[in-house]
Amino acid sequence: MTSAHPRTALQLRSLVKDSGELEISLTRVPTPAPAPNEVLVRVEAAPINPSDLGLLFAGADMSHAARHGTKDHSVVTARVPDAALRGMAARFGQSMPVGNEGAGTVVEAGSSEAAQALLGKTVAALGGAMYSQYRCVPHEQCLALPAGATPAEGASAFVNPLTALGMVETLRSEGHTALVHTAAASNLGQMLNRICAQEGIALVNIVRSDAQVALLRSLGAKHVCNSSSPSFMQDLIETLASTGATLAFDAIGGGKLAGQILTGMEAALSRKATQYSRYGSPIHKQVYIYGGLGPGPIEIGRSLGMAWGVGGWLVTPFLQKIGPAAMQRLKQRVAAELKTTFASTYAAEISLFEALDLDNIAIYGKTATGRKYLINPNKDVGNQGSG
Amino acid sequence: MTSAHPRTALQLRSLVKDSGELEISLTRVPTPAPAPNEVLVRVEAAPINPSDLGLLFAGADMSHAARHGTKDHSVVTARVPDAALRGMAARFGQSMPVGNEGAGTVVEAGSSEAAQALLGKTVAALGGAMYSQYRCVPHEQCLALPAGATPAEGASAFVNPLTALGMVETLRSEGHTALVHTAAASNLGQMLNRICAQEGIALVNIVRSDAQVALLRSLGAKHVCNSSSPSFMQDLIETLASTGATLAFDAIGGGKLAGQILTGMEAALSRKATQYSRYGSPIHKQVYIYGGLGPGPIEIGRSLGMAWGVGGWLVTPFLQKIGPAAMQRLKQRVAAELKTTFASTYAAEISLFEALDLDNIAIYGKTATGRKYLINPNKDVGNQGSG
Repeated sequence: MTSAHPRTALQLRSLVKDSGELEISLTRVPTPAPAPNEVLVRVEAAPINPSDLGLLFAGADMSHAARHGTKDHSVVTARVPDAALRGMAARFGQSMPVGNEGAGTVVEAGSSEAAQALLGKTVAALGGAMYSQYRCVPHEQCLALPAGATPAEGASAFVNPLTALGMVETLRSEGHTALVHTAAASNLGQMLNRICAQEGIALVNIVRSDAQVALLRSLGAKHVCNSSSPSFMQDLIETLASTGATLAFDAIGGGKLAGQILTGMEAALSRKATQYSRYGSPIHKQVYIYGGLGPGPIEIGRSLGMAWGVGGWLVTPFLQKIGPAAMQRLKQRVAAELKTTFASTYAAEISLFEALDLDNIAIYGKTATGRKYLINPNKDVGNQGSG
Repeated sequence: MTSAHPRTALQLRSLVKDSGELEISLTRVPTPAPAPNEVLVRVEAAPINPSDLGLLFAGADMSHAARHGTKDHSVVTARVPDAALRGMAARFGQSMPVGNEGAGTVVEAGSSEAAQALLGKTVAALGGAMYSQYRCVPHEQCLALPAGATPAEGASAFVNPLTALGMVETLRSEGHTALVHTAAASNLGQMLNRICAQEGIALVNIVRSDAQVALLRSLGAKHVCNSSSPSFMQDLIETLASTGATLAFDAIGGGKLAGQILTGMEAALSRKATQYSRYGSPIHKQVYIYGGLGPGPIEIGRSLGMAWGVGGWLVTPFLQKIGPAAMQRLKQRVAAELKTTFASTYAAEISLFEALDLDNIAIYGKTATGRKYLINPNKDVGNQGSG
């Protein structure tokens, strides 16, 4: 088989030194040859998800980051605070590739039938190191995109869609009937609105600005609460009482919101109580924290009875728990509804070089709604491949 | 059947008005006649557990309580803060009896064989309203005490023993191997040390003074950490690493301790990690909050990966979950080991009148280790019965 791709290609890396210095750089790595069950993907679109920023920035203060070197050979440095540094010893000195998911063209395939079947196709892939020009992945980590779909349209086919579907599966398996979601105007939040509308599940959207309220309402969302409003707690309790939601997925974590949701659920439940219990409502109220958009500690108030839980939630262990057949079912649904239910939008498409630009970092590092960036690792690299 | 007991007798009551005023008083209630499956217990010992104080004081500020009336007909009043008042609407205006558990003599029994079998016996009972001279309860809520055991020895046969046994059962059913306990010098904590020693389970005791460290060490505890020590976090992490504890039961709730335990568990686990994961250790870390000794919000730091949970835990739903056969097995164990494993100690025995004394309230309201009070509802009431 002849290779139409260069022998070495660019990859974005993140390195934390034990001194607490973070270094983000581009490095040139050998283009791998696929094993029999693998395919080589020329990555043309990879989103910068909040879940990528933890590995990329390592909790460093990027507002004081510095950029060294030339445009084509630059290194961004920043300091990781001591608190974030604890628990990071296992990555000290290791230059780590970044990028949970992406999409592109299969330019080479291993000898297996399943791998060969993907040759020339546009695929989405999950597996890390996607901020690379070329990435070798097992064929089962790929999703062949429907005819006509572009890499940009398939770039976010895994993390957000499977997370949103995982939330709904969790709701069902844990016996809840309605759902709360925070940072709800995000791409993920918009998907979740479409899924819940399809499946008749009441969804309480929590956002933090009137603009986000308007955005979600324009997309047909029925229940939207603005956490910046002075009447937030009353609005939330009303909405929780009318929907009966006892499960929340919270992207924020730090601060008071997770606790406010539990307190609101308890207040909504205790309204319906026919007799007083010193232990509060016996109905279990659960908040799963699946992101860390909010810094600082999580603060949970105490007017929530005894039947409650808060905990971390990640899509990967969830997918392991449901097994490969169920995961395959979810993936097929994503492919079929890629341009509708699971459509994503991006503020900009940038190259690997532009990903190291401090002005860009200041924007995509904020993970603000409507400011999601897409990296195209093969943008502006015409003269970079060494064939 | 002739009754050797008065037709009416005293009962302690707690009332919250919608104005936020708390009223604690003694009232005279008709002595009930047992149904076929019930027994009438002359209550001679009932502990004031932290779990009773929520109903009794309703979160009121007892340091500003006032006492009105005469010694024999007094009422204690205090103000419930607005924050605590929320969610309490279902008890407004209801005069509620108090006292989860107690022990005494069966002075009358219903017609059923099981009830008759208890006549004249000293029993412990669970069921609320135990701060009463006489209390009618279904026979299955009683535990016949072994020969020679006094009501005082059996007064705490339910809440603390079943809570401690429930913790160990939870550890097993959720797949943990070692346990953390806070406020660990309490009667409950001492029981838990004896149970864990018997069963070979490593127990990490967290206390907040050197005196409590010394007390637990004198009772044979191996692992004791003092949260007031400047080296607390290091000590805790060392102990968590050596024991492998990933489950904690926390009596305190408010403040930072629950979060510190999770952070310490994650730090202990990440020491053993062979490769870095941006999501932290995949091993689940759990803190169950079963009490509310600490006021204020629960604060959970963020260096704990994603595999963690915090939630409320109560012994009653736990017992319902394990079912009557398992509960019976636990009760029989408590009876057999009442004077050893499950022995409790009390600072004082007080009458119902003395329970309304502000100086006593100032002591038992603090739920301090070594200051647990026992109410004897039939103390000093010789001239109170109206036959």
